[in-house]
Amino acid sequence: MALIVKKFGGSSVGSTEKIINVAKRIIEEKKPGDQIVLVVSAMGDTTDELIELAKGINANPYQYTREMDMLLTTGEQVSIALLTMAFKTLGQKAISLTGAMIGMKTNSVHTKGKIIDIKPSRVKKELERGNIVVVAGFQGTDEKGDPVTLGRGGSDTSAVALAGALKADACEIYTDVDGVYSADPRLIPDARKMKEITYDEMLEMARLGAGVMQPRSVEMGKYFNIPIHVRSTFSSKPGTMIREAYTMEEKDFLIRGVAHDDKVAKIAILGVPNNPGVAHTIFAALSDKNIAVDMIVQSIRNIEKNVTDMVFTVSFDDLPQTRKIIDEVADKLSAVAVLIEEDVAKISIVGAGMLGNPGIATRMFGALSKAECNIDAISTSEISISCLVKKKKLKDAANAIHAEFFPEA
Amino acid sequence: MALIVKKFGGSSVGSTEKIINVAKRIIEEKKPGDQIVLVVSAMGDTTDELIELAKGINANPYQYTREMDMLLTTGEQVSIALLTMAFKTLGQKAISLTGAMIGMKTNSVHTKGKIIDIKPSRVKKELERGNIVVVAGFQGTDEKGDPVTLGRGGSDTSAVALAGALKADACEIYTDVDGVYSADPRLIPDARKMKEITYDEMLEMARLGAGVMQPRSVEMGKYFNIPIHVRSTFSSKPGTMIREAYTMEEKDFLIRGVAHDDKVAKIAILGVPNNPGVAHTIFAALSDKNIAVDMIVQSIRNIEKNVTDMVFTVSFDDLPQTRKIIDEVADKLSAVAVLIEEDVAKISIVGAGMLGNPGIATRMFGALSKAECNIDAISTSEISISCLVKKKKLKDAANAIHAEFFPEA
Repeated sequence: MALIVKKFGGSSVGSTEKIINVAKRIIEEKKPGDQIVLVVSAMGDTTDELIELAKGINANPYQYTREMDMLLTTGEQVSIALLTMAFKTLGQKAISLTGAMIGMKTNSVHTKGKIIDIKPSRVKKELERGNIVVVAGFQGTDEKGDPVTLGRGGSDTSAVALAGALKADACEIYTDVDGVYSADPRLIPDARKMKEITYDEMLEMARLGAGVMQPRSVEMGKYFNIPIHVRSTFSSKPGTMIREAYTMEEKDFLIRGVAHDDKVAKIAILGVPNNPGVAHTIFAALSDKNIAVDMIVQSIRNIEKNVTDMVFTVSFDDLPQTRKIIDEVADKLSAVAVLIEEDVAKISIVGAGMLGNPGIATRMFGALSKAECNIDAISTSEISISCLVKKKKLKDAANAIHAEFFPEA
Repeated sequence: MALIVKKFGGSSVGSTEKIINVAKRIIEEKKPGDQIVLVVSAMGDTTDELIELAKGINANPYQYTREMDMLLTTGEQVSIALLTMAFKTLGQKAISLTGAMIGMKTNSVHTKGKIIDIKPSRVKKELERGNIVVVAGFQGTDEKGDPVTLGRGGSDTSAVALAGALKADACEIYTDVDGVYSADPRLIPDARKMKEITYDEMLEMARLGAGVMQPRSVEMGKYFNIPIHVRSTFSSKPGTMIREAYTMEEKDFLIRGVAHDDKVAKIAILGVPNNPGVAHTIFAALSDKNIAVDMIVQSIRNIEKNVTDMVFTVSFDDLPQTRKIIDEVADKLSAVAVLIEEDVAKISIVGAGMLGNPGIATRMFGALSKAECNIDAISTSEISISCLVKKKKLKDAANAIHAEFFPEA
């Protein structure tokens, strides 16, 4: 007997036919005595349709964040009602519950709410009555009782947090890919599905550009220590288990994945004074505007003149604002020049296993060298190594690195 | 300064354009210091669309009443979000509140809920903050917090009950007719709009087949003594005020209206024993099945044999069930025959003024006589007189009666 929280996204419940299929599958796979909580998103295009409707009132409806939440939370409410009807039609006891009814308490930051607390007493009661409990993902209520949506990745986060609050045995995230891959198969055809990955590795992968799971939900899983099973909506094969540590001594691979990010720009501020506080001046100006920087490299440029070069990367999204800020800062610091390169890409390897293996960086650089790929910058964390390369070399570089660490089976 | 609850039905908010128009109108008509609560229904066809969606899961979705309520309550939630955005777009402070948020407590009879209590503290707070409060009609929550819809006429009932709980100065019901008429203009072209009508008269009109307002909401108005202003969505002219008594000594008309109902059948049970308990046997069998009977007439048929005829009417909806029950009862009572006539119609006059005017019945029968219309049965209440006539005579009879009591201006 197990208590399992399963989350199905909008595409999995995109039509009444698909909803019936989800219900059938759940009933088929349910073992006697299993307690099942389903967290679902709005049907396929519903959210987009609601946004279109709001645009009929005001071209920029998101300025009214509370009312957008009032509007958009209806999407999941429709899904849970229909899915529950599907269960009942198939003879399975079930009940639908909204975010408010599962005790999902959030702050009041409408459209981007954060979970503060979950008091799922109603969920427990309904499970004890033999119901499959069908829950509206993506939503909670604030202390006033107003509906609040959780923003990007909110349904996954709902599911994992609810699994945590229920002390569930596992949380299964059903998605249109069948698990977490060692790399993006579109870039690296040899990428393979991983059986297991740790929370920290998954978070590092996400930070470095791999997009299967939003970091929020992985952090929630780590916080509650709930294993997250990422698996396919369209197949019953096991996917990838995200958990605290490997269970199977599956240490065949020293690294868990090759991540890449080609939406980054390299900023170089040349000839800034090599004085205490200069780095602080530059990066405080950026962090004040909530701009995340990465791959910071400082090199001595000219000892005589006591000036240095400061190099870092930012994401494309932040580039226009960064340009403005850095021009001002460079002026203030009397820097010689600011160079911005957009034809770069960051390629990273991630793996908790690299901690005790000093040779891994060497192997990565070796693979890049064999691929005749120059390295523009290097940065490392406890469980990752990233190299900045020219964008046109990304594919070759990534495949060379992947082949180095994931030899053909 | 006044506190006014206004209710707009689904056709008034059937598109984003109409929603914007409603918002504009409310802002235009709002006097400084007025506090406005708007109760709205789901947009035009939304409810039908949601029902269609549910039928994609199960051909008979209404068997799952709780889930239908979960589904259908999203309709009003969409309307209130959009209407609130429209107000804000026009620069008017506004906030949307669901049935749960206005403290609308119902019993747990899903899809046909009854209001138990309203605790509108949130509504008051938002009004004090200068908001127009936009409320989802038709819905409340039961003691478990589950959504419950109020069934037929539910939005009007929400509005009137909320007006009562808020001790509002008036409740305005916006509809596609411009008030309560002395008769159905489709049947009687001379029908005229009444300025005022009492709760009791309106209830009697509704009971006798006049359809402008559901009796539930009128009863609610009577209970709270809240004047209900029935008026047009498309015009700013005053409509009809439903209240406890006439305010304007507007006693020009002895009766308030001519109602008709051609969806009735006449049942005659011939030759039943004229013993104590026979009427009870017949009508208990019907009331046990929740069938309402009307116009009961008992006549002595044959004194020697001590048998009588029992005549009454039921509505078409209840006819199939009535047939079955009455055949059994007639058997048990050894009745001679059961006759069922469907080509009849009930025509009624309603008016609190008839209480002290014994000549009114005479004038009604006179009008019917002039129209050469036979009377099949007669029944009276304190404020109404009904006659059963042949359906083909309905139009002539109704016009003759109307002309008698509403002479041309």
